[in-house]
Amino acid sequence: MEHVTFPRIGVIGGGQLARMLAPAAEALGVRFSVLAETADAPATQVINEVTVGDYTDYPTLKAFAETVDVITFDHEHVPPEHLQALVEAGHAVRPGPDALIFAQDKIRMRTKMDELGLPNPAWAEITSAADVEAFAARVGYPFILKTPRGGYDGKGVRVIDSLDEAVEWLNEVPQLLAEEKVDFTRELAVMVGRSPMGQTAVWPVVETWQQNGVCKEAIAPAPDLRDEKARAITEAILTVAGTLEVTGVMAMEMFETAEGFLINEFAMRPHNTGHWTQDGAVTSQFEQHLRAVLDLPLGSPAAREDVSVMVNILGADHEDLYQPYLHVMAHDPAVKVHLYGKGVRPGRKVGHVNAYGEDRQLVLARARHAADFIAGVDVDPHPQMPAPENLRAESEPGAR
Amino acid sequence: MEHVTFPRIGVIGGGQLARMLAPAAEALGVRFSVLAETADAPATQVINEVTVGDYTDYPTLKAFAETVDVITFDHEHVPPEHLQALVEAGHAVRPGPDALIFAQDKIRMRTKMDELGLPNPAWAEITSAADVEAFAARVGYPFILKTPRGGYDGKGVRVIDSLDEAVEWLNEVPQLLAEEKVDFTRELAVMVGRSPMGQTAVWPVVETWQQNGVCKEAIAPAPDLRDEKARAITEAILTVAGTLEVTGVMAMEMFETAEGFLINEFAMRPHNTGHWTQDGAVTSQFEQHLRAVLDLPLGSPAAREDVSVMVNILGADHEDLYQPYLHVMAHDPAVKVHLYGKGVRPGRKVGHVNAYGEDRQLVLARARHAADFIAGVDVDPHPQMPAPENLRAESEPGAR
Repeated sequence: MEHVTFPRIGVIGGGQLARMLAPAAEALGVRFSVLAETADAPATQVINEVTVGDYTDYPTLKAFAETVDVITFDHEHVPPEHLQALVEAGHAVRPGPDALIFAQDKIRMRTKMDELGLPNPAWAEITSAADVEAFAARVGYPFILKTPRGGYDGKGVRVIDSLDEAVEWLNEVPQLLAEEKVDFTRELAVMVGRSPMGQTAVWPVVETWQQNGVCKEAIAPAPDLRDEKARAITEAILTVAGTLEVTGVMAMEMFETAEGFLINEFAMRPHNTGHWTQDGAVTSQFEQHLRAVLDLPLGSPAAREDVSVMVNILGADHEDLYQPYLHVMAHDPAVKVHLYGKGVRPGRKVGHVNAYGEDRQLVLARARHAADFIAGVDVDPHPQMPAPENLRAESEPGAR
Repeated sequence: MEHVTFPRIGVIGGGQLARMLAPAAEALGVRFSVLAETADAPATQVINEVTVGDYTDYPTLKAFAETVDVITFDHEHVPPEHLQALVEAGHAVRPGPDALIFAQDKIRMRTKMDELGLPNPAWAEITSAADVEAFAARVGYPFILKTPRGGYDGKGVRVIDSLDEAVEWLNEVPQLLAEEKVDFTRELAVMVGRSPMGQTAVWPVVETWQQNGVCKEAIAPAPDLRDEKARAITEAILTVAGTLEVTGVMAMEMFETAEGFLINEFAMRPHNTGHWTQDGAVTSQFEQHLRAVLDLPLGSPAAREDVSVMVNILGADHEDLYQPYLHVMAHDPAVKVHLYGKGVRPGRKVGHVNAYGEDRQLVLARARHAADFIAGVDVDPHPQMPAPENLRAESEPGAR
C-alpha cells in the first residue's frame, strides 16, 4: 500500500475550521477525515472522507477513532469523559482532555490562571444569590456572567445590572462564572502551536475587534503594541501551553488595559483571530495545527507582510454571496476571499477576507470593503482609499 | 437551496493539478468535482465529489458534464471531437476545443505560431523519409523528433542522429514533428490567465531547468532577464492567448537564445512551471484558473517575494516520503512542501517544494535540499547555505 506511511488525521466537527484544515492536509499529503454533525456541514463539501454522526455519542466517537491515527477538533464541545475514555483506549487525542478541559470549562481556566500567576480579571464562581451579592460588593454593577461551559461568539454571556437579573439566570443553571466588566483600551489575541515533543511557535500578537460578541476584525501585528507587553503576552501563552501540555494550536484572547493585559479566554484549535495567517504568515494556523498534532517540526510563525488584516463576512439580509465577487474582485485583485459554504443568516460567520500590505489604514479599508460588499451590508462600492479618517464610528468600543 | 448561486466546476483528470485546484475551490466556495481515471488518483484523495471514468468515452464525459456548470482540465488528452460535441450540446468547456487543439497538436501549434509571426525554431511536418532528408539538409543532425500529440514530460520526444533512426520511428506512426536542436542558453517559461470576457493577467517570466525532459526547477522571476526580452515574452503570450481565445491559465515554455527566445511548447491548464505561485504570488495559478474559467475578475499575478523557487520532488529508490519531513521541517521551518499522494517510481513527480526569500542562491539551496531529502536522493543533510559555489554540476545543460 503506497500511502501506508502517511498518518490519518480525524477531525471531530465539520465546521469552517475543519474545512480550512483541508488545504493543509492536501499539501502535506496526510489523510484527512471528518466526523461532521450534518451531511452539508462546511467541511463535508470539500473533504473526501466524511462520517456523519453525533459527537456526544461515545460509540460514534470510538468507531471514528478506530479509522484514524490522531484525533483533533473543530470545536470544544465533545464531552470530556468521552475524550478520557478514548485516551484510555489508546487513541491519540490532541489536544488531550487534560488540557482541553481548560478551554471547555471557564471556571477551571480562571482557577488555573490564578495558580500560574497570570493576569485574570476579578472573577468568582457563582452558585447562590449570596455569591452574587459578594461579587457585586467587590466590583459593583454592571458585571459579566457566563456559563462556564458551552458558550461561544457571545452566546452564554450576559451583562448583569442587578441582583435580580443574576438570580433569574441562576434559577435555570446550577453554576455561573462572574467576571468584572473590564475597562479595556482594546482587545488583543495571540496564538501558539505546540507539539507533543514540546516544540512551540508563537505568531505575532494581533489586535481584534468584536462586534456584538462576534470577532469582526483582526490586525497583525497589533498596532503600536509596546515590545515589553508583546513579550509578556508571548511568555504568558508559552507558560499556559507548556504547563497544560497543549498539543495543536491554541488562541488566547485578552483585554488590553492601561497597565497591561487581562486574559479573557482560550481556544485549543484553529481560531478566528488566526485566519490572517492563511495569507499573511509563513505558516498558517491550519498547517501548523496539523504539524503539531502529528508531532512534526513546526513551521515558521513569522509574518510575511508589514500589515495583515482579517475581516469577517457576517451574514446580512441577502443570500447571494457569489454575485458580489464580480465587483469585489474587479475592485481589488489582491484581496483574498475565504467562504465557508454556509447558508446566510443575519450575523452568522459565513466567510472572511484577508488583505495585506504596508499601509494599515489602506489594508483595513480594502478588507472591510470586500467583506461588507460580499455580505451585502450597505457599503459604498467605491470608498475613498485610504480612508481620510477613521472608518469606524468613534462611539464603538475599540474604535481606532 | 443555500448554495444554488455557487457554480459547479468539473475537472477532467484526477492528477496533481486537479488536486491542487481543490484548495482554491475551498476558499472561493465553489463546488468542485473531478472525473478521475482511477479511484486512487491524487485528486480523489482530497475532493468530495469524484466520478471514476474513462475520459476517452463520450457518454462518460457527457454524463459528467451534465452535473456541472463549467468543464475544465487536468491534462490535454481528451479527444478533440468529444469536446466539440460537448460544446455543441451547450456545455461550457474552458479552454474550448478550438483553443485547446493548439496545445494538443504540436504541428497545429507550430503552424499557428508562424502565422502569428512568433519565434519558432526551424520545424517541419514529417511523413516520409524524403521529409527527413529535406529537414536534415536544412538543420543537420542531430535534430528533435516528436509525436505531434500525446507526449508529455519528455515522452514522445527523441534526439535523432540519422535517417535510419527517423525512418524506424516513421514505420510505427504516420506523422512526426521535426524541430531543430536549439542551442539555448537556458529555458524560460511564462504563464497567463485569461477569462471569457477577455481579461488577462501575466505572471513574471521564470527560468526553468529540465532534467531528462522533466521539469526539475523554476526560479521566479528569471534571473537577469533583460526588460525588453521580458516584455517581448509577455507580449507573445498575450498575443497567443488573445488570438486563440484561451480561457483558464496557459503556460508557454521557451528556449532563451543569444538573440531572443524560441517557443518550445504550450499547456492550457495549470502547469509545473507555475507551482511557485502557490506560495510566491498574490494569486496562485490554481485560484486564477478557477477565476478565469468562471469568468470572474482575475487576481493579481504579482510576485510577493524577491525570489521564489520551486523544486520538484522526483521519485528515487525509497518509498517513504513522510519520514523525511522530520528532518526537512526541523532543518528549515519556512520551506513549503506539497505532496501529491502518489506512489513512488523512479523519476516520477511525486511533489514539489516551494521556498522564497531575498538571496537567490540561498533560496535555491534551501528548496533543493528539502526536495532531494524528501525524495531520498543522496544529499548532505546539512549543506552549507548559501552554497559557496554553484550547486549544479557545470556540465549539465542550463548550469548556473
